[in-house]
Amino acid sequence: MKQLYHVLGAKQFGREELEQLFDAAREMEGVVAHGGDRRHEGRIMTSLFFEASTRTRLSFESAMQRMGGNVIGTENASQFSSAIKGETLEDTIRIISGYSDVIVMRHTEIGAAKRAAAVADIPVINAGDGAGEHPTQALLDAYTIRKEFGKIDGLKIAMVGDLAYGRTVHSLSYILANYQDVMVYYISPDNVRIPEDVKKYMDKMGIRYQETTDLDSVAGSIDVLYQTRIQKERFPSVEEYEKASGQYIVDAELLSRMRPDAIVLHPLPRAGEISEEVDSDPRAAYFRQAVNGVYIRMALLDKALTESKKA
Amino acid sequence: MKQLYHVLGAKQFGREELEQLFDAAREMEGVVAHGGDRRHEGRIMTSLFFEASTRTRLSFESAMQRMGGNVIGTENASQFSSAIKGETLEDTIRIISGYSDVIVMRHTEIGAAKRAAAVADIPVINAGDGAGEHPTQALLDAYTIRKEFGKIDGLKIAMVGDLAYGRTVHSLSYILANYQDVMVYYISPDNVRIPEDVKKYMDKMGIRYQETTDLDSVAGSIDVLYQTRIQKERFPSVEEYEKASGQYIVDAELLSRMRPDAIVLHPLPRAGEISEEVDSDPRAAYFRQAVNGVYIRMALLDKALTESKKA
Amino acid sequence: MKQLYHVLGAKQFGREELEQLFDAAREMEGVVAHGGDRRHEGRIMTSLFFEASTRTRLSFESAMQRMGGNVIGTENASQFSSAIKGETLEDTIRIISGYSDVIVMRHTEIGAAKRAAAVADIPVINAGDGAGEHPTQALLDAYTIRKEFGKIDGLKIAMVGDLAYGRTVHSLSYILANYQDVMVYYISPDNVRIPEDVKKYMDKMGIRYQETTDLDSVAGSIDVLYQTRIQKERFPSVEEYEKASGQYIVDAELLSRMRPDAIVLHPLPRAGEISEEVDSDPRAAYFRQAVNGVYIRMALLDKALTESKKA
Repeated sequence: MKQLYHVLGAKQFGREELEQLFDAAREMEGVVAHGGDRRHEGRIMTSLFFEASTRTRLSFESAMQRMGGNVIGTENASQFSSAIKGETLEDTIRIISGYSDVIVMRHTEIGAAKRAAAVADIPVINAGDGAGEHPTQALLDAYTIRKEFGKIDGLKIAMVGDLAYGRTVHSLSYILANYQDVMVYYISPDNVRIPEDVKKYMDKMGIRYQETTDLDSVAGSIDVLYQTRIQKERFPSVEEYEKASGQYIVDAELLSRMRPDAIVLHPLPRAGEISEEVDSDPRAAYFRQAVNGVYIRMALLDKALTESKKA
Repeated sequence: MKQLYHVLGAKQFGREELEQLFDAAREMEGVVAHGGDRRHEGRIMTSLFFEASTRTRLSFESAMQRMGGNVIGTENASQFSSAIKGETLEDTIRIISGYSDVIVMRHTEIGAAKRAAAVADIPVINAGDGAGEHPTQALLDAYTIRKEFGKIDGLKIAMVGDLAYGRTVHSLSYILANYQDVMVYYISPDNVRIPEDVKKYMDKMGIRYQETTDLDSVAGSIDVLYQTRIQKERFPSVEEYEKASGQYIVDAELLSRMRPDAIVLHPLPRAGEISEEVDSDPRAAYFRQAVNGVYIRMALLDKALTESKKA
Repeated sequence: MKQLYHVLGAKQFGREELEQLFDAAREMEGVVAHGGDRRHEGRIMTSLFFEASTRTRLSFESAMQRMGGNVIGTENASQFSSAIKGETLEDTIRIISGYSDVIVMRHTEIGAAKRAAAVADIPVINAGDGAGEHPTQALLDAYTIRKEFGKIDGLKIAMVGDLAYGRTVHSLSYILANYQDVMVYYISPDNVRIPEDVKKYMDKMGIRYQETTDLDSVAGSIDVLYQTRIQKERFPSVEEYEKASGQYIVDAELLSRMRPDAIVLHPLPRAGEISEEVDSDPRAAYFRQAVNGVYIRMALLDKALTESKKA
């Protein structure tokens, strides 16, 4: 009987599994500190990136190799010769299934990871599917919060920037929905507000949240400021873009009004929305956050390789 | 004394070597099922692809890693910086010889693999050279036939589609020419018929074959239907292309007229010439065929690494 | 206390360190001849190439894998998705530091390697930064000279071609400046002469050198002819380019006037400036030189991984 552990979206995770993953990620920090291990020697991961995402790809490849595994893959969709020849995603996945033990896939279309998992003989991990989800980013974000505070329950978390198109904040919301007494602030310009379906999900899960355009009003009370990029192309004019994005820059002045034990996160890359003067503040946790991606991905790959069985 | 086992073209294989390779490939299935082994730990394969062929490349890289070996390489000719600067293929190969233990090369020009082998200090495996040959594809095709039927002798094999430019069917013909009582049907539109030199080779080897444009007339009697793509650009107009290619689509209706123990093969990727409704039929062997590529390539790499000696 | 062994430029090497590196490279030849070893099993090298240089990249990747290490990386700057999104080099390096144990970087801008080293938590090896330096090429050049002659002291070395823009000859000059009684001939067309700052450095280090446009006059007396490419785009017209480059072609005729124990080197790729008729002469050392790149890079990676300590 085929039994595969896929990672497709953030909603698939319940609290118990999250805690197990975070514990496993913590153990992986020790594994890396001691030079890695060979637990997946002989196993092969395929990096199937139909869209470039060097950072995410390298993070997964590092994770697999830290456990002794091997990697094959392709860096860029435009070079996937079969796709050029008109092959369906399903055919590609059926064939790649025969080459390796786990597929990590980035795609441009919503739902691509689910389609892949439907035909794969090996586990599929969604490394971002268009405007859909990016569950492993959300997991590393949540892991970072738990590591920095020792808990997630009871925290006040502000997500800032483009909340309409930023799939990261959607996936993170779904993860946070598993915790108690969390308060989420969705802070964005009016034209890129958090989507209705995310709010409905939070309502259903009983999570408190508040929407606002005003970062200043909550800066002093929050535990976590989760900053994201705002993209020019979402705005009708450069003027409106600059006006909107200018309100949400995290700089030394804003930091001075935040709590001494708060942290600033960012999925990176940044492009001006966090000033470099912030980097030296201990509350700047975004580079620590980036490293956590390797540990979480080790935990996920380990689970996928261990708990999956081919037919 | 330098002694190198190159894989350059399908004609180099005699029946005895084919049987040894197929036996070795069968053993490799067991190696993979047991998590791979480390027989080529420390050895390095170079993937030198002057033209994208992600599927073939990943299949070779998986094969090398399943035996504990390492891989270096380049995914795309256009990025091979030395070639851009005007370096000859011969110079490139002389240098790559110093970096690794075996070269797997895809090139756009006929004869490129032979030119590479002439100057290399390490074995060269031809992964397709322009309109020339693609011997490892033909080997995996023949291996699949032997595995599905337990033999190749005595089978009726139809090759369908673009037989003029499809190098796969040329290489496969050369392999089949080693077997007894084989009957080959070359089924294609008139403008993309099997080339004269292939027919001459079959004549010389005493292999029976028949050319026809009519798939329907032989569908009921063949053991193997080897389908290939027909490319638009070979035809004077879209209308003529559609008329020609439409005749050769393998669908449920055609399948209903085939023998219950026949199989359908395809080198993949497909683009409409086998309907998806065929996939669930046990006679659809093309995905099983794709996986066999890893085992055959393991057998070839193993032979190249084991039987070659540098000066 | 963080302590990192970076390789940024050729001037950082003193004679004692050079001799240790050359001895280590010689040992690495034995390691490779015996199938490699596993001394860096579990360690990861990142190939961060913001500009294609397949040869240099493959040489480093081979070096890392010959010692049991793993490789992650990106082949091409244009695909580094974060750079496209406006990320600074410094941010990229901070994050990559968390994925691996050593970074090998090729960049288009002078000084990029130093900027990377300033923020990295792991050692950085400069694999060429724009018109700046290419220290590992110079080290393999010098290693080749020492291996071919058993010494560098006392040799007469001619560098030929584009001495203005060829960073290789600059880096090699800095390495040679550590040796006794070396005589350097800088032989180039007038418009691509060796830069003043290189000459000043040689003066300061007490190294004799002579500039000339005339290769013929020194061909008979030199020990090493270090040939480089002359690029069309440096010249005002094709005529002037052809006139200039034509003077410096190394062919059988020139070779006949060179000493029987002299050698010809070239950083490769070549594009006509060494005739193929020269290849079979034992004095043609450029292919031997290319292989030496793997041994020197093994020695450098080994030193970087062994002598560096994270905080």
